[in-house]
Amino acid sequence: MLQKRTAFYVSDRTGITAEMLGHSLLTQFEGVVFTETPVPFVDSLEKAQELLRRIDDARDTDGKRPLVFTTLVDPEISAVVASADALVLDCFEIFIAPLEAELGIKSSHTVGRSHSAADVVDYHRRIEAVNYALAHDDGVSTRDLTEADVILVGVSRSGKTPTCLYLALQFGVRAANYPLVPEDFSSMRLPSQLRSFRAKLFGLTINADRLQHIRSERKPGSSYATLPNCQFEVREAEALMRQEGIPYLDTTTKSIEEIATHVLHEAKLVRHIY
Amino acid sequence: MLQKRTAFYVSDRTGITAEMLGHSLLTQFEGVVFTETPVPFVDSLEKAQELLRRIDDARDTDGKRPLVFTTLVDPEISAVVASADALVLDCFEIFIAPLEAELGIKSSHTVGRSHSAADVVDYHRRIEAVNYALAHDDGVSTRDLTEADVILVGVSRSGKTPTCLYLALQFGVRAANYPLVPEDFSSMRLPSQLRSFRAKLFGLTINADRLQHIRSERKPGSSYATLPNCQFEVREAEALMRQEGIPYLDTTTKSIEEIATHVLHEAKLVRHIY
Repeated sequence: MLQKRTAFYVSDRTGITAEMLGHSLLTQFEGVVFTETPVPFVDSLEKAQELLRRIDDARDTDGKRPLVFTTLVDPEISAVVASADALVLDCFEIFIAPLEAELGIKSSHTVGRSHSAADVVDYHRRIEAVNYALAHDDGVSTRDLTEADVILVGVSRSGKTPTCLYLALQFGVRAANYPLVPEDFSSMRLPSQLRSFRAKLFGLTINADRLQHIRSERKPGSSYATLPNCQFEVREAEALMRQEGIPYLDTTTKSIEEIATHVLHEAKLVRHIY
Repeated sequence: MLQKRTAFYVSDRTGITAEMLGHSLLTQFEGVVFTETPVPFVDSLEKAQELLRRIDDARDTDGKRPLVFTTLVDPEISAVVASADALVLDCFEIFIAPLEAELGIKSSHTVGRSHSAADVVDYHRRIEAVNYALAHDDGVSTRDLTEADVILVGVSRSGKTPTCLYLALQFGVRAANYPLVPEDFSSMRLPSQLRSFRAKLFGLTINADRLQHIRSERKPGSSYATLPNCQFEVREAEALMRQEGIPYLDTTTKSIEEIATHVLHEAKLVRHIY
């Protein structure tokens, strides 16, 4: 029988860092059914005490100690959580001591220095990047393409829109996107609006079977969604991108994070972090 | 004089987890100028060797050892990076041993179990959530609001759109948004399309001075952007939300992560992690 465990991701802020790290650690353990519970905004001793009760309840339900991943900055709150009858893994404090020793200075133990809007310039860049992605989605506008950090091209439903939005939200990068359509393939030329921005172009491609599946969910029974049409568009788009010297990436088995990271990495763009 | 240090965020995949954790640790140290360098896709011994050269270069330039945060799963690659003349902080391996002891099983040491599109169901949910957010942005469509997990309301430029997109991309949550506009305030009633979805409504509000600033950048000199108009709209929107019993959050000093986490937390929505 599979063992059941509850994992808590505990933070005085959003808990997203604890959750991403904890979740990727848990994927390394097969044969365990994990219930993953984010607990953000644990910023008082009362909330820490309430968390202890939830940890006890989970232990009683599972019959096993919970796993608790924390990124708590306040030492008093952290001490309360550390007293839980659970495996408590402090993802923050464990690195503070070696960093203090290496840098020769004490940490400030200040809550919320990252993921806060304190830095209004950064926040503004991010919001503007989102607005830019929305205004330049799917070739809607080709105005201001000079301001784009990168312009994604590819057939419809190859992953351009979510990638542009992720680039904006996660990295503050201004990403436009422009579809490659059958009339581009018959001329075997780039859309005229894009020709002066060749150095900013980055292609996304996708397996034709997967594309058929995605398009069939959007427009069932359309000729647009048929396998022969998907095969044709993918083949022609790849040929056009090769001919034009546009680097491209197969998105078929990649997550949005992976696609976005590849684009930044290969286009040598600076990513900001929030 | 401020000391200069280079921080590398090293991973066999995107490096986003290492970067988020490392960056939030570094914000705890004032008086150091950090150059932060993500190094994703270090998935071969050759790339690990190349990284060692970059670490050496950074040490020579700064005159101080770099800081290297890693989330490498492959033990051989990890060993190469650990041999660098730097403070190498392994954000992954350090937690594997206590987890193995607690769970009584060995980890699989498999690269890329998170942030991969392997789980097509999850991937699909996420893309559909993005499509949903785009189709239901700014009240564009009120069809299918029954499918929304949450519907954000608030005055124009209170942060609804980026929050909805972040909820979709990061958490796979279907979020619609609907603006509150002057005609809603004169009737002091919710837009009729929203009245049957009251339990799904969540409000965003914002400081009027900040709103004036944001609106002035979008539409300089418009009456829409004047301080008296911003004060009027914010006051009336808050009164309407209070009257209707809609919970709301002030976004003025919050990051997109914080706003999104608050919305999920207070609306008691389940967040998925990718």
